[in-house]
Amino acid sequence: MSHPGGEGRLAQSAAVRVGPLGTMEQVWDWWTALPRRGAYEVETVPFRRLGEWAFTSEGNLVHASGGFFSVQGLRVTGDGPPRTQPIINQPEVGILGILVKEFDGVLHCLMQAKFEPGNLDIRQLSPTVQATRSNYMRVHNGRATPYVEFFRSPPRDRVLVDVLQSEQGAWFWRKRNRNMVVEADGDVPEREGFRWLTLNQVLRLLYSDNVVNMDARTVLASLALHPGRDDAPAADSPLRQALLRSYRSQDVEGGAVHTLRQVIGWFTDVKVRCAWDRALLPLSQVTGWTRTEQEIADDARQEFRILGVQVRASGREVRQWTQPLLAPFGQGTAVFLTRTFGGVLHVLAAARPEPGLSDLVEIAPTVHCRTPAAAAAQPFAGAALAEAPERTHCDVVLSEEGGRFRHALTRYRILDAGPEVPDLPPDGYCWVTAGQLTELARHANYLNIEARTLLTCLYGMWAGAAPGPGAR
Amino acid sequence: MSHPGGEGRLAQSAAVRVGPLGTMEQVWDWWTALPRRGAYEVETVPFRRLGEWAFTSEGNLVHASGGFFSVQGLRVTGDGPPRTQPIINQPEVGILGILVKEFDGVLHCLMQAKFEPGNLDIRQLSPTVQATRSNYMRVHNGRATPYVEFFRSPPRDRVLVDVLQSEQGAWFWRKRNRNMVVEADGDVPEREGFRWLTLNQVLRLLYSDNVVNMDARTVLASLALHPGRDDAPAADSPLRQALLRSYRSQDVEGGAVHTLRQVIGWFTDVKVRCAWDRALLPLSQVTGWTRTEQEIADDARQEFRILGVQVRASGREVRQWTQPLLAPFGQGTAVFLTRTFGGVLHVLAAARPEPGLSDLVEIAPTVHCRTPAAAAAQPFAGAALAEAPERTHCDVVLSEEGGRFRHALTRYRILDAGPEVPDLPPDGYCWVTAGQLTELARHANYLNIEARTLLTCLYGMWAGAAPGPGAR
Repeated sequence: MSHPGGEGRLAQSAAVRVGPLGTMEQVWDWWTALPRRGAYEVETVPFRRLGEWAFTSEGNLVHASGGFFSVQGLRVTGDGPPRTQPIINQPEVGILGILVKEFDGVLHCLMQAKFEPGNLDIRQLSPTVQATRSNYMRVHNGRATPYVEFFRSPPRDRVLVDVLQSEQGAWFWRKRNRNMVVEADGDVPEREGFRWLTLNQVLRLLYSDNVVNMDARTVLASLALHPGRDDAPAADSPLRQALLRSYRSQDVEGGAVHTLRQVIGWFTDVKVRCAWDRALLPLSQVTGWTRTEQEIADDARQEFRILGVQVRASGREVRQWTQPLLAPFGQGTAVFLTRTFGGVLHVLAAARPEPGLSDLVEIAPTVHCRTPAAAAAQPFAGAALAEAPERTHCDVVLSEEGGRFRHALTRYRILDAGPEVPDLPPDGYCWVTAGQLTELARHANYLNIEARTLLTCLYGMWAGAAPGPGAR
Repeated sequence: MSHPGGEGRLAQSAAVRVGPLGTMEQVWDWWTALPRRGAYEVETVPFRRLGEWAFTSEGNLVHASGGFFSVQGLRVTGDGPPRTQPIINQPEVGILGILVKEFDGVLHCLMQAKFEPGNLDIRQLSPTVQATRSNYMRVHNGRATPYVEFFRSPPRDRVLVDVLQSEQGAWFWRKRNRNMVVEADGDVPEREGFRWLTLNQVLRLLYSDNVVNMDARTVLASLALHPGRDDAPAADSPLRQALLRSYRSQDVEGGAVHTLRQVIGWFTDVKVRCAWDRALLPLSQVTGWTRTEQEIADDARQEFRILGVQVRASGREVRQWTQPLLAPFGQGTAVFLTRTFGGVLHVLAAARPEPGLSDLVEIAPTVHCRTPAAAAAQPFAGAALAEAPERTHCDVVLSEEGGRFRHALTRYRILDAGPEVPDLPPDGYCWVTAGQLTELARHANYLNIEARTLLTCLYGMWAGAAPGPGAR
């Protein structure tokens, strides 16, 4: 009980620009000097060269151990004609954990430069631990996951965050991971590829394309970061004032358009009205998708394909392995539109179903399309997809989980809604404050993974880590 | 947006002892004068006389319309040998709704004296609306559910609460209902059997055996009732002072033993460690249970039996019907043990799996046993089951859902833990404050139905509705 909640200490760390590695320039020096080419080789291979991975008689792609994950089929009904697709089934709950520790009274995060086979740029900035259960239980007979011992049974008073959060509901079947932040006491060795960074440094890296990985972003979002009590003087522009008020407004009394209970009620209503149903089925029963020796892809080549890769590596738990990856066709877009009501910044949240989410519906970005083809059909696509530097608060391209997805890039944007978006949004949408989103992000089953990334970006705007409007 | 959150107004209503019906004495006059015998007749009948209800070839007990609910089988694995049991499957999300309205600036609840076939005493105090989807969509061709129009598409700013909550995970398969509180404007006719009561009056009725029904209790719990800002002077005894501090303590800074995040982390940990799995199966494959012409019961007659009833009524949507009910063997017990740490009352919460809960594990009473036989085996049974008037804060026998369960009584108790309970509880238990439980009760999937009843009882202690220690 010596370490209380940590909210104030997190806000403090979000303001500290210099850490053990030095300034941001020195952080960048470390990052760019990391081995890239040569250390890892990822080669696309036909399915027959996937080693322990093979298709069952039902057409599912599985590992001989029964562990890791499998690619199966999914049928979705209830909203238009039934449709089917492949989906990744990974029932184990893994750990995504950031170890934090005070240096000179400031919390630092132990971040890892981690290779994943689907990464665009070989390594991305990752949590301290990113381990499936197979992984840290050593199903693959590799080396132990470094630092995992801090996350297995931490004393309760060392736990800053420990909450289950969902991942991509369009690509994963009911996947969820344990998002953890644990505080360490005493000496913690800094292993190769791991560095202590302040929260401000991590947030600054977040605004560079494809540096901070999805797992790090979701753990940061679960921290429910918000301005500290003493941060009022830092609100030095109208936008930052509106954002500070947004973080401090959880209810109508504070200037929010709706009470938090009404936001929960809106979410409940969308959930109850959702008529979707979904079930796993053998991959061989998926229609509109074709399997060749090289890939399984939708015939229109608009969604994604499943392919196999062979990896040769020197820095990971095992030195060589093969695995399937899911590769989307084209870049996705996820946008939070914002508007200021009564001096309080609000975000236009959507509540939308995705077939793989535990409870189907979660709170999502205003606009989110996984591929360019899907973009134009969404409500608010005009406002959300426009290039509008003067309305843009944040604009960055980030990668989704490189352990399962190949080059799955999403352009994340936060921008002012502009005049064409109505004050009274249609069903399925609700104006919410940063404080309300932050409150909900503490719990499971509310914000989907893209909304959580945008929530972290929003906090980066507050912490001064975001480049200014029109920077892109 | 004219009616903000309502927290203060709820606390105010919880202090007002006189409403439109008059004093509590007059409320009791109304209640006891309600027709009892004669108005409804409930007769146990063999399954063959259940009319539209029949067994399928798989042995499941279903309604010819495919609506309402069915009795199926359930298999639970993962913790000891697999076991099977019958379970009620009711996939529809119903509405449990209380309509509230201000009279002379005080919020009142429109409560209903409602008959249910499983009620011990014919009618119990129920929410304004208690309707399955079949019910309010009129699958059974009955009369419309009164007041349901207030809950179908209420304007967002009239919604005080709207959240999905679970029901008995041992008896229901993934059942959850929408718990709603909606505020009405303008004239609302008071139909026969419906009365406007202050929250204080409802809470006083709660402390009488078998008056306030389960559906009313869960809606009250979802209101996340807590003391208003001006209630400090009302803390006129050490216990009430400790309880007031408990409601005001959500984090370590406020005197809670753990931060709310650590409580969520404890809950996540129990969830992740739970090795249970469960699946529906045909009722004919359930073992250790025997079906006769009259009932389906476990062979030890320790759990429950499924039986059929024929109802003749004049005050319900249809005048005569038959249906199955689940009748437990003997009375259950649900106990919150409490202890004061640093002047702040804490409750010893348990996190336990129940096979029918959506996510298996929810926060439960310290001790909960559905039948007397199961009681002694639980941790803390000694402290929780003792007759200890000097340690007893609350002690009342309440009924579970009379629409599905027959005479399912639970003795709910809140009592001081006494010296034998350790300050450091074992795995699966955690000391939490009333403020933390209240905060979690605003969301789905945290508190199970018995914990929510006890949370309402706890608030009744605060509101002065509970009889004093040793009153029973």
